[in-house]
Amino acid sequence: MGKRIAAFGEVMMRLQAPGYDLLSQANTLSYSFSGTGVNVISALARFGHDGYLVTRLPDNPLGDAATANLRKLGIAQKFVARGGSYIGMYFLENGFGARPSRVTYSNRLESSFNTAPADAYDFADIAGQLDVAHFCGITLAMNDAVRSHMLRFAKAAKARGSLVAFDCNYRPSLWGEDGYEKAKPFYEQMLGLADIVMMNEKDAMYLLGMPTKGTTREEQLEELVPEVARIYGIAVAAGTHRSVNGDNTHSLRGYLYKDGRFHYSDTLTFAVYDRIGAGDAYTSGILHGELSGFEPERTVRYAAAAAMLAHTTVGDTPMAAEREIVRAMTQAAGDVER
Amino acid sequence: MGKRIAAFGEVMMRLQAPGYDLLSQANTLSYSFSGTGVNVISALARFGHDGYLVTRLPDNPLGDAATANLRKLGIAQKFVARGGSYIGMYFLENGFGARPSRVTYSNRLESSFNTAPADAYDFADIAGQLDVAHFCGITLAMNDAVRSHMLRFAKAAKARGSLVAFDCNYRPSLWGEDGYEKAKPFYEQMLGLADIVMMNEKDAMYLLGMPTKGTTREEQLEELVPEVARIYGIAVAAGTHRSVNGDNTHSLRGYLYKDGRFHYSDTLTFAVYDRIGAGDAYTSGILHGELSGFEPERTVRYAAAAAMLAHTTVGDTPMAAEREIVRAMTQAAGDVER
Amino acid sequence: MGKRIAAFGEVMMRLQAPGYDLLSQANTLSYSFSGTGVNVISALARFGHDGYLVTRLPDNPLGDAATANLRKLGIAQKFVARGGSYIGMYFLENGFGARPSRVTYSNRLESSFNTAPADAYDFADIAGQLDVAHFCGITLAMNDAVRSHMLRFAKAAKARGSLVAFDCNYRPSLWGEDGYEKAKPFYEQMLGLADIVMMNEKDAMYLLGMPTKGTTREEQLEELVPEVARIYGIAVAAGTHRSVNGDNTHSLRGYLYKDGRFHYSDTLTFAVYDRIGAGDAYTSGILHGELSGFEPERTVRYAAAAAMLAHTTVGDTPMAAEREIVRAMTQAAGDVER
Amino acid sequence: MGKRIAAFGEVMMRLQAPGYDLLSQANTLSYSFSGTGVNVISALARFGHDGYLVTRLPDNPLGDAATANLRKLGIAQKFVARGGSYIGMYFLENGFGARPSRVTYSNRLESSFNTAPADAYDFADIAGQLDVAHFCGITLAMNDAVRSHMLRFAKAAKARGSLVAFDCNYRPSLWGEDGYEKAKPFYEQMLGLADIVMMNEKDAMYLLGMPTKGTTREEQLEELVPEVARIYGIAVAAGTHRSVNGDNTHSLRGYLYKDGRFHYSDTLTFAVYDRIGAGDAYTSGILHGELSGFEPERTVRYAAAAAMLAHTTVGDTPMAAEREIVRAMTQAAGDVER
Amino acid sequence: MGKRIAAFGEVMMRLQAPGYDLLSQANTLSYSFSGTGVNVISALARFGHDGYLVTRLPDNPLGDAATANLRKLGIAQKFVARGGSYIGMYFLENGFGARPSRVTYSNRLESSFNTAPADAYDFADIAGQLDVAHFCGITLAMNDAVRSHMLRFAKAAKARGSLVAFDCNYRPSLWGEDGYEKAKPFYEQMLGLADIVMMNEKDAMYLLGMPTKGTTREEQLEELVPEVARIYGIAVAAGTHRSVNGDNTHSLRGYLYKDGRFHYSDTLTFAVYDRIGAGDAYTSGILHGELSGFEPERTVRYAAAAAMLAHTTVGDTPMAAEREIVRAMTQAAGDVER
Amino acid sequence: MGKRIAAFGEVMMRLQAPGYDLLSQANTLSYSFSGTGVNVISALARFGHDGYLVTRLPDNPLGDAATANLRKLGIAQKFVARGGSYIGMYFLENGFGARPSRVTYSNRLESSFNTAPADAYDFADIAGQLDVAHFCGITLAMNDAVRSHMLRFAKAAKARGSLVAFDCNYRPSLWGEDGYEKAKPFYEQMLGLADIVMMNEKDAMYLLGMPTKGTTREEQLEELVPEVARIYGIAVAAGTHRSVNGDNTHSLRGYLYKDGRFHYSDTLTFAVYDRIGAGDAYTSGILHGELSGFEPERTVRYAAAAAMLAHTTVGDTPMAAEREIVRAMTQAAGDVER
Repeated sequence: MGKRIAAFGEVMMRLQAPGYDLLSQANTLSYSFSGTGVNVISALARFGHDGYLVTRLPDNPLGDAATANLRKLGIAQKFVARGGSYIGMYFLENGFGARPSRVTYSNRLESSFNTAPADAYDFADIAGQLDVAHFCGITLAMNDAVRSHMLRFAKAAKARGSLVAFDCNYRPSLWGEDGYEKAKPFYEQMLGLADIVMMNEKDAMYLLGMPTKGTTREEQLEELVPEVARIYGIAVAAGTHRSVNGDNTHSLRGYLYKDGRFHYSDTLTFAVYDRIGAGDAYTSGILHGELSGFEPERTVRYAAAAAMLAHTTVGDTPMAAEREIVRAMTQAAGDVER
Repeated sequence: MGKRIAAFGEVMMRLQAPGYDLLSQANTLSYSFSGTGVNVISALARFGHDGYLVTRLPDNPLGDAATANLRKLGIAQKFVARGGSYIGMYFLENGFGARPSRVTYSNRLESSFNTAPADAYDFADIAGQLDVAHFCGITLAMNDAVRSHMLRFAKAAKARGSLVAFDCNYRPSLWGEDGYEKAKPFYEQMLGLADIVMMNEKDAMYLLGMPTKGTTREEQLEELVPEVARIYGIAVAAGTHRSVNGDNTHSLRGYLYKDGRFHYSDTLTFAVYDRIGAGDAYTSGILHGELSGFEPERTVRYAAAAAMLAHTTVGDTPMAAEREIVRAMTQAAGDVER
Repeated sequence: MGKRIAAFGEVMMRLQAPGYDLLSQANTLSYSFSGTGVNVISALARFGHDGYLVTRLPDNPLGDAATANLRKLGIAQKFVARGGSYIGMYFLENGFGARPSRVTYSNRLESSFNTAPADAYDFADIAGQLDVAHFCGITLAMNDAVRSHMLRFAKAAKARGSLVAFDCNYRPSLWGEDGYEKAKPFYEQMLGLADIVMMNEKDAMYLLGMPTKGTTREEQLEELVPEVARIYGIAVAAGTHRSVNGDNTHSLRGYLYKDGRFHYSDTLTFAVYDRIGAGDAYTSGILHGELSGFEPERTVRYAAAAAMLAHTTVGDTPMAAEREIVRAMTQAAGDVER
Repeated sequence: MGKRIAAFGEVMMRLQAPGYDLLSQANTLSYSFSGTGVNVISALARFGHDGYLVTRLPDNPLGDAATANLRKLGIAQKFVARGGSYIGMYFLENGFGARPSRVTYSNRLESSFNTAPADAYDFADIAGQLDVAHFCGITLAMNDAVRSHMLRFAKAAKARGSLVAFDCNYRPSLWGEDGYEKAKPFYEQMLGLADIVMMNEKDAMYLLGMPTKGTTREEQLEELVPEVARIYGIAVAAGTHRSVNGDNTHSLRGYLYKDGRFHYSDTLTFAVYDRIGAGDAYTSGILHGELSGFEPERTVRYAAAAAMLAHTTVGDTPMAAEREIVRAMTQAAGDVER
Repeated sequence: MGKRIAAFGEVMMRLQAPGYDLLSQANTLSYSFSGTGVNVISALARFGHDGYLVTRLPDNPLGDAATANLRKLGIAQKFVARGGSYIGMYFLENGFGARPSRVTYSNRLESSFNTAPADAYDFADIAGQLDVAHFCGITLAMNDAVRSHMLRFAKAAKARGSLVAFDCNYRPSLWGEDGYEKAKPFYEQMLGLADIVMMNEKDAMYLLGMPTKGTTREEQLEELVPEVARIYGIAVAAGTHRSVNGDNTHSLRGYLYKDGRFHYSDTLTFAVYDRIGAGDAYTSGILHGELSGFEPERTVRYAAAAAMLAHTTVGDTPMAAEREIVRAMTQAAGDVER
Repeated sequence: MGKRIAAFGEVMMRLQAPGYDLLSQANTLSYSFSGTGVNVISALARFGHDGYLVTRLPDNPLGDAATANLRKLGIAQKFVARGGSYIGMYFLENGFGARPSRVTYSNRLESSFNTAPADAYDFADIAGQLDVAHFCGITLAMNDAVRSHMLRFAKAAKARGSLVAFDCNYRPSLWGEDGYEKAKPFYEQMLGLADIVMMNEKDAMYLLGMPTKGTTREEQLEELVPEVARIYGIAVAAGTHRSVNGDNTHSLRGYLYKDGRFHYSDTLTFAVYDRIGAGDAYTSGILHGELSGFEPERTVRYAAAAAMLAHTTVGDTPMAAEREIVRAMTQAAGDVER
């Protein structure tokens, strides 16, 4: 039986140059609508949950296009406010091999979401209709008004007994100089409210300033994550270690920490078609496992397979059905399905 | 021999839905870079003048794409400043017949152009290298900083003996409530500096608040334009009367007022493919005629034919060569040229 | 306040050759998902009602694509059954001027909808959640199993006090030889259950075999429609007279018969971009007017304007918002909206 | 029962800018393969005849693409020689309304066809397998080698009792200065061999230098064509009068002169999508009528309808089937066919 | 000197989502026409043989598109019947890396081919004009009527001394539950008529139920194929062993059994662009080698290289010329050819 | 501070089949304008130099498109002559894996560049405005008139103290039989004038006929290049060794010989997207290093990284900025830049 889960976050319009063209070579773009919340919730809706987005979109043709496409992704609209004037945008130029992909943002601080008035959402009402509320560190980087919405929603959810999920997702470019210092108090608030946290050892070291004796990433992870969980009262922590290989492949290993124990997926190595949003597929897998009562071992393998498939999929938003993820957990790459 | 002419104005990225799709139907866009200054200067460069744009673009892949495309249009780059973070954008959904085209703007107030610092341009240096400086009422609507740039440039041009051209181009949506009142003092300043003005009777009536006894547009035009020219010391005034017919055609008649006399083109009726920017083609024709010493009669016919052809051309920016405009002045629609 | 309305009908995949290419010239197609029910319900959802489709789609990637696109159109999925193997398809080659458009069907009789088992839908449950149920003569032409579903749904709706809407929509090619004879009993059953009927004088003359003394279409309409309404107990009848002009324009006049009186729209003449589905826009306008308590005069004008705009829109499915239809009722074709 | 008909002529690669873009705006082209012979023969093959092309194409990937596409159009390959290095090309920019279409040629004089050696074709063998051989004035304009091929083929066909069809198709740009003078002797040779000639009064006046007392085109036609037929022993002459209207429509009236009598089609006025090659559709209609024993009255109406439909079709090559032409002869523009 | 070869089989319309999009993400498709017979015959025509298809296509725009495209592929039409209503279709979503490609079929059982009446083809006449007749196990899976056509054609070919080629090509999804049992008698009939058979050890083990002591595929192959050849009187057997590697490459080794001896190609490992139809390229290579009197060693290497190149080619149908295959047999991957 | 550099060479129109289609499969092409000179100069303009092309283009829509696109690439037009009738063209079909890319040329010998009259360019005037003049062996292969232009330009540049750069770039297909012999005297002339030469050991061995005792490419290079430099008085020689790997990757190592010493880049191995023009990126890196006073070690690494990135870029022309090349010199492939 599916759960009711809502994410709070901005919808971004992704405008992508065709093939491997630069913006100064092409004259067309393809567009879609995504964002951490969009990606996580769309995947969970595909897994059978009722997925909502709590966001604000302009009441103009771009907002209409965004809502139509969110519906297409299976996201229910009843907590989507309309107002303000703009939608956040980013332009994507696909890299190839030695040439990295490039993302160029439009001015998202003026977006409908980031200029929402204090009373834009009725969080008490929303929280009463949910089993889980999901938040993300990208939203935390926006401005005080948005952070205030976020905190009020998280507290309302907590107050009504919903689970709170928080993805640390620290983006240096959004916080600017002395970013870790600026970000720390806000992250601490969210960690204090969260039941399920997406993070790894870097968040503990840099954001929370925790010291470590570990010298490898694995040692640092196993030392710091339990400490973070203890301090902030977090039930489940999960995340990935990724390495970018020279040949258009990535390697990824997921971890899940719960009840004092670490569980790991295999290290998966796979060809990458579209890297953006793959982390959100991992999150969706962890949440689905937790909400569905999977064994932790299965959850982390499911999440890693979901992330792997998301790298093979066009666009930011995961598109794999549960049966496809389960097959990817157990089978090697196969021939055509027919 | 070509003249040296620069326009001051913002470069806009035009993002257009394919065919007659709405943004909520399509998933691709074509893009190009335009703006009143871009359109006028590109046309004049095609007519054999040295055309410059005085503007500011971000130093990122979107700014690179814009500058590459301006070069493609024949616009010299030496007065283009780079800095700031964003480029103004608008989304275009093509109408068909009874369904009008729709334009949706991004937040252009945060653009590199509209956030340029006071010292972004060395107007004294620029003005010394020009024969004509061109300005537009759209720019006047932006903010005080931009208006201050505009006034300083116009004064510097005037001081060095360059001609000043000003296109009234009043856009109600940019000025908001009580727009005419807000706009009037700025328009009066620019009209006081201008030698060549693009306008019609509506500008005199609504912007300048001038009374008229005329009841038809033609009577009002012939009463008010000479009055405006007298008050503000304007040598040449020009503009068009347009009517939108029910069958995807428009009718357009150009006028030119100079030395106390009105000159008119025929009323041209023609099928319309892309209406945006066609007014700028008219301006480019007037300026080319004046800079090249055409008889006023020829100038107004040339400008009207240039405007007509711009309606048949993809994109905002006129693409017709002088020989094509001359042919359109004299010939009916013809068979394939081969 | 919106009403709850469901349509019973097949979802068709429309596969369209690009531009004016024939299938033997092109090598790409664009696709979308439509059908009378899809078109009517999507429009009503856009007007603020809760719109549902009662249909059956295969549980495969084509069915997934269909449901995603129905959601995008604003159609709620809770009455959509999944099962069977195929989706109905049609291929469209756009005509131009003297060359008519061509439609080629795939084998829709094997579609999931047309092979649904007797118990595919829980009509009692569905009917209890509706204000209006909508049916169409195209569905009536399929096979006995579908006709049986249709009748059971209509009776269940009637039994629970919902309004029943029926669009005669007789398609000769679907009924084959002696089609009118074959169709008559089924049409009579549906007319007997319907409150709102889309029809014109031809349905009365050919389907129902009613004689008329009228010689013009208008006389025949005014003679026969009241008679049909009387016989079958129909509260509202509505429809259009269309003529195809030689120059890519159509002329259309809508009528609405209610409480013993005829109401007509003006005869609208307009350029046609995509003719398919425009009749469904008219239906949606009639239903919206009736459900919203419009005066009949306003309803018929609203429906005619909705139909006109649907001819200017890409695809089968109407895309106009209420404010756009209202503007089209009152204004001539205008310049770009910006 | 179909006849065997071969055309002698060059295959051109048509490279077309998308939509209404100029070559300096676009960055893609669509391509197809055409030419007078291709167009006429493809249409006749569609009408049920065995159609051949006698031409020469390079033995490289462009030649492979050409032959594949000729096969697609129904043209048999057995008289197509392979050799040489190049294929003739032309670039097409579509005009719109007041802006005419533009054709830019590549260097066709170096094409495989125009550089074919004297023994490239075995005309005696080819002629023995034909009922009709078709020639065109465009080919006549190329060079002496090609003209020599052409004459030898026409004589061989004549010698074996095949019909010889010749389309005057005088293109001023191909003959250059004093073109009529240069062309006259070659035209006279071909007219002397031809049974069926496509021409109108202008060919008689300018190419053949015949005086006329007529003042209207019609008078000139009726005076000169019988005279030409008499002098050169031509059994059938046919052609069209075309006028280009201001609104994207053309008007066209076909004539057929045979057995001392003129037969005319109605003057057809129609929207034009792609004008190039429409004259070849007319020719194909005349030849089909003659080969099939139509009454002259029917032939000229069939040919005019074929020409009209070719204007509504993408590409140079007619695509209409006989049943579509027959319907266009008898019906007004209709609604969607489904 | 080329041979005359005809394949009996269905033409399928392939509708492919662009790039790596899913059907629920895209809104366009590219289409082409293929099928085992199409692929094998097109390749053989490219190698210089006269290639025919014996099939049935609807007499509608889809059938017209199919025949035009078959002609483009070099396939002669004289044995193609027209009739029935539908064409078989399949939708292809390209996989990437860990995500497999997906094929979704339309209802091919209602296709013109699969509903052809008993007298649709004049097999006696056809067989008299051939050197080889080719059949495929996919066709065998359709229905009794088609199987009856197939058997009659194979017997007629045999009776007239043509070679009979049969590709086992067992597709589990087409035969359903207990498929091997159902299929066995039909396969035995075809094997009994065949001279050249495409198969491997799996066909012997599962279809024919033959026991083996071999434990590796190679041992099983070398044990079973000679046994099958002996039992059914088969002159030549050939096939491949394929393995799908994790990195978008496949490895493939071809075998040819003739005159009591096995011949093998090298194991080729290569990047895969489009896997579908590559087996047919292998078949075409075997048949070409046999028909052209190649040494078996050369035939199997030629066939394997043809198969390898088919994996690098867009679409189902092999496009490589003989000289390209020969080069691929002898050279490593090279730089640009210019 | 940037230098002034001009290349003498032909502009080619590149017409590319989409994706991995053959010309006989596709019906669209993308086009761009390139050439050794275009590629080198565009890259140098992007690095901050003033870049010119000395060439000749037709005064027609293709020439207009070429000049617009050259401007877009940052190439100044003042030395571009207009005249003649044609532009050189080549068609590109992308290979995949085991299938090599194919290039098919149009008749470039008739191009405006290759038919330029003796006085087409004022070399004395041009040379006086330059710091460097660049030449290429492809141009040397055209005809006597072009070779005469080339020599006069090189001498004029030398006379005015400009550096002369020469890229040997020997293309066997352009010189035909006994090519090395034919080419040798022309190469010797250019080498005698050149200061900077792009070459490797093969040019010395085959073009100049120099003997070597070396058995590896490296030994041959280190023996022959110093000898060539000594004989012809060359200050700087540079070039690459490339190997094409089986898996869509190439390996490339650059060398730079100067002041009696060899400097090498690392051997870079990288995935290849578009191989054409990558050698020109290497040249641009060498020239930029030399003009900017880089240490030779840095120059060769910069040039190799520029070449590597050019393989990952759409089109012939390098698009990487200096900062991107510098990053590629120092970093491994990275994650998305955002």
